[in-house]
Amino acid sequence: MHSFDLNSYLLSKRKQIDRAIDKKIDRTTHSSVIVSAMKYSLMAQGKRIRPILCIAASQAVGGQTEDVVGVACALEMIHTYSLIHDDLPAMDNDDLRRGKPTCHIAFDEATAILTGDALLTLAFEILSSIEPNDINDALKWLRVIKIIAIAAGYKGMIKGQIKDIASEGNPLGLEDLEQMHALKTGALIEASIITGAILGNGNFEQIEQLKIYAKNIGLAFQVVDDILNVEGDPVVMGKDVGTDQARKKSTYPSILGIEKSKEFAKNLVNNALQALDYFDNKADPLRAIAHYIVDRKK
Amino acid sequence: MHSFDLNSYLLSKRKQIDRAIDKKIDRTTHSSVIVSAMKYSLMAQGKRIRPILCIAASQAVGGQTEDVVGVACALEMIHTYSLIHDDLPAMDNDDLRRGKPTCHIAFDEATAILTGDALLTLAFEILSSIEPNDINDALKWLRVIKIIAIAAGYKGMIKGQIKDIASEGNPLGLEDLEQMHALKTGALIEASIITGAILGNGNFEQIEQLKIYAKNIGLAFQVVDDILNVEGDPVVMGKDVGTDQARKKSTYPSILGIEKSKEFAKNLVNNALQALDYFDNKADPLRAIAHYIVDRKK
Repeated sequence: MHSFDLNSYLLSKRKQIDRAIDKKIDRTTHSSVIVSAMKYSLMAQGKRIRPILCIAASQAVGGQTEDVVGVACALEMIHTYSLIHDDLPAMDNDDLRRGKPTCHIAFDEATAILTGDALLTLAFEILSSIEPNDINDALKWLRVIKIIAIAAGYKGMIKGQIKDIASEGNPLGLEDLEQMHALKTGALIEASIITGAILGNGNFEQIEQLKIYAKNIGLAFQVVDDILNVEGDPVVMGKDVGTDQARKKSTYPSILGIEKSKEFAKNLVNNALQALDYFDNKADPLRAIAHYIVDRKK
Repeated sequence: MHSFDLNSYLLSKRKQIDRAIDKKIDRTTHSSVIVSAMKYSLMAQGKRIRPILCIAASQAVGGQTEDVVGVACALEMIHTYSLIHDDLPAMDNDDLRRGKPTCHIAFDEATAILTGDALLTLAFEILSSIEPNDINDALKWLRVIKIIAIAAGYKGMIKGQIKDIASEGNPLGLEDLEQMHALKTGALIEASIITGAILGNGNFEQIEQLKIYAKNIGLAFQVVDDILNVEGDPVVMGKDVGTDQARKKSTYPSILGIEKSKEFAKNLVNNALQALDYFDNKADPLRAIAHYIVDRKK
């Protein structure tokens, strides 16, 4: 398992995704401000976690990367839209994201709102632009669109953001914190993995195991984010640390303490790895990503 | 043609749409603030122009209302999301809409941003939740989703909003004004009509004629909106008049004068009616709507 070279895997997948995203936007030169703002936000050196998970999940069930590159791009656009809107003055009011001015700082607030809207809408344009081969293929794509819409919507990611906003000044208990993360970031991460598996023709049991994997690494990712906000290196991370405490946000370290949070993250990753026992070495990228999530420094 | 009773048609279709919209939201009781804000904005006594056009277009080609109620709801959700975001302080900064406090006034700015996001996303959830009967049906639905995503996106409605914002303080010429409206409101109106016709199994020529109809009534609708902003009755309209002039916005009356604007609107409606020559009396609702658009007082 450890012989798998995650760094070169991530690098090559990121390149592939970046190229694909660039194509999805470049084909048109409509309304230049929006296009500039979309590219600015999409190309802000994101980790591409969701697209890579989508590709890796497809691979784990024997699918081809080419078949999921479109949905991978759409997932990154939805993620990017959510960051742009979360950063707005009325929401988290963040000036920096990945070391660069946020969209409403680099452009303006109206442009940032519309750029988020545009990316969300473009995601669904991409998802509906495929040309299915047969009825099963068409049904698969409609299912993928529905899964992503539900995950991104008011029963998923948006509900999580509402809970997050409501929690400022009203500290959450452990259970509510977990539910908030499960919605705010977990839902789209799970959708990325499930849609990858569906498009790769995964069977029912594979998809069930990947759901367990997804829930565990999704939460682990957040726990580690919380930990990095306490003891991460702002230079490496390209963003400020200590901001959660300053905002009195409920986090795993604030509730469990830093050591127990690290232990919790490790347990989650172990659960995720266990769910992959059901898979052969085609799931090695997913295994390596699970390790990466706890070990990462940014 | 004039024997067709538009008022009772509009009333019955509005009721049908309102019931359907209510169902789409009511089924879940997730995240109550967002659900309240979604309902508040959706149930703000809109004219339901887009859903009704969608239904009437489907009817004109021989389709059944039941087959397009879902897409009609989705179109109204996209329209409502666009109004919520357009009203935001960073955009048009409007406090009133249809005589009621706008979403960010009734709730708050963060909730309004997220409510818009939620409605846009829910539209695509609804569109992808149908259960197609066969490959042709599935392909039709994917085509419908794509048409709506393009119309609502950065090559359509959002591009129009960007142009509209840019025009404040920079008066537009007639051609740019027309292009702005064609994008900002025309694109979604056209999509409403086209998707209705596709789902009603309209043939190529029918759809081409309906595109002409759509472009003309879409623009006529805007010209009349501009006229009503000059000489409408604020009590009947439930919103202030004279706001365009106060904001120095380019409008048809400001460029053409009020009489020429009225003439222009009438010509557009005549063009729209001409495109319907190709249809039998199943297109009477579309004909009556074209008349209504120039005659309306709000």
